[in-house]
Amino acid sequence: MDVLIVGSVALDTIDSPHGHVDRALGGSATYGAVAASHFATPGIVAVVGADFDAKHTRLLKNRGVDLTGLQIDTSGKTFHWSGYYEGDMNQAFTRSTDLNVFASFTPVIPTAYRHARVVVLGNIQPSLQLEVLRQVAQPKVVICDTMNFWINSRPEQLREVFRKVDVICINDAEACQFCGTHSLPAAAQNLLKLGPSRVIVKRGSHGVSMFSRDSFFALPAIPLLKFRDPTGAGDSFLGGLAGYLARSRVLNDNAYRRALAAGTVLASYCVEDFSCRRLIRITVADINARAALLREATRMPGLSIR
Amino acid sequence: MDVLIVGSVALDTIDSPHGHVDRALGGSATYGAVAASHFATPGIVAVVGADFDAKHTRLLKNRGVDLTGLQIDTSGKTFHWSGYYEGDMNQAFTRSTDLNVFASFTPVIPTAYRHARVVVLGNIQPSLQLEVLRQVAQPKVVICDTMNFWINSRPEQLREVFRKVDVICINDAEACQFCGTHSLPAAAQNLLKLGPSRVIVKRGSHGVSMFSRDSFFALPAIPLLKFRDPTGAGDSFLGGLAGYLARSRVLNDNAYRRALAAGTVLASYCVEDFSCRRLIRITVADINARAALLREATRMPGLSIR
Repeated sequence: MDVLIVGSVALDTIDSPHGHVDRALGGSATYGAVAASHFATPGIVAVVGADFDAKHTRLLKNRGVDLTGLQIDTSGKTFHWSGYYEGDMNQAFTRSTDLNVFASFTPVIPTAYRHARVVVLGNIQPSLQLEVLRQVAQPKVVICDTMNFWINSRPEQLREVFRKVDVICINDAEACQFCGTHSLPAAAQNLLKLGPSRVIVKRGSHGVSMFSRDSFFALPAIPLLKFRDPTGAGDSFLGGLAGYLARSRVLNDNAYRRALAAGTVLASYCVEDFSCRRLIRITVADINARAALLREATRMPGLSIR
Repeated sequence: MDVLIVGSVALDTIDSPHGHVDRALGGSATYGAVAASHFATPGIVAVVGADFDAKHTRLLKNRGVDLTGLQIDTSGKTFHWSGYYEGDMNQAFTRSTDLNVFASFTPVIPTAYRHARVVVLGNIQPSLQLEVLRQVAQPKVVICDTMNFWINSRPEQLREVFRKVDVICINDAEACQFCGTHSLPAAAQNLLKLGPSRVIVKRGSHGVSMFSRDSFFALPAIPLLKFRDPTGAGDSFLGGLAGYLARSRVLNDNAYRRALAAGTVLASYCVEDFSCRRLIRITVADINARAALLREATRMPGLSIR
């Protein structure tokens, strides 16, 4: 087990202008683990209810995802999100959120997971993210994700999390919100001062940027004519990133740049279909093809004026 | 004269969270020409009124801008825009727009400009953009800019312009609006079908993308801690791009990639101060420094999974 991913395993009911799914497999840990499984062996720490279908478990196991850490709480149902997208699908609208067994989720890290090389603290309550960190033994990289809900309701706990991780993964508006600034570069500098070595800023269809103390790197999103459902794009990005880092021997700036590309590629496949349908089916050749496309899309020839 | 730029020369009264200027030199042709002047000799086709101060004329001439095509209409005043920015400064709010002499502007191309290598059709009424094209002789590159106002009010004239240019420069929302789609890649494909060889999509603080029939290229904006006034950023980008193309012997994909970088660098300097204060002062070394920064920011190491 190389990558420990804590988060949600959910059932999603989704409408987009391109179709509909009912109680499809979703959740941040699911997307993250399926994406990571293309590069390393991920293990999930999450909870599902009595209604969680064995076909979902089979699907994850077949992708090489370790489920030792998946709790089954038979007292209730699996976390269910129902929502929809419109127009450019840049925003998710919620119809209903039934936390169900996820409401009382307490992460318990199996012994076999405690020495995971990479730990992904998915977008859950910051106090639970801290609880996970207490249970793991010296991971090489800890990455955390978060969202505006925790920035508003638990800013101090979140600050504590940011102090203890290596990489903060956050979207552009949330980074500015947390730091109380309108300037993203200023927000990134503030976040770096808390301790992490890297701040990765998700910009949705505009791509992703990475700030460290002495470098800045940016990748565009891959332009897609087939774009059906944005659910899980950020989680797939994070999973691809974490999985790639887990298989990297050296964790230098170049390794992180490659990992960002891996995450970008996985996210691009995620959104081409509902749930993790496409993410599960892609091959090494698919990944390499889009990584090559991304490299060509960023190839800037030298420019020197005299 | 290498680059013909048609557009506005204006006086701007601006408030941003970082300061205030009163009747400062502005306008799309001004920003474009000052940016282009770092790479080539630009000539302006525009109109000003009786109130246009000789110090502005001097400033432009000192930067090597040819003003043969600048009409002085003594019957009225210079185009005046008054507006302000708030918060992240992503949106300009207008207090007043006094078109003044610009309301009856008809571009007249001086004989000396008719063989300009590069023609920039700034963001003016599409019928005037077409009028310019009737007066020039086989330029190597014609680039047009536009805005939502013309997309709404003159879509058919604008379509005619798009059919006759080599490069469309447009922002992401406007490209989608013009094509009636929510998908930017679909919009870019539609625009390319009209005839241009390249569509350049401006994404504000997220950077810029370039679509051609067989390539896709993207650059991030340069992260700036000092960001005072976004006015003219898009025009400086366009001017930098056009100026760089004018000095390129071969107009292949790499030349366009470099030109996009040149435009991005010029835009980054533009926004660091009000009006064209910063844009006028920068040196070749300044430009090369940020071009190098941009190249490092886009350096993606190869990624091949087995």
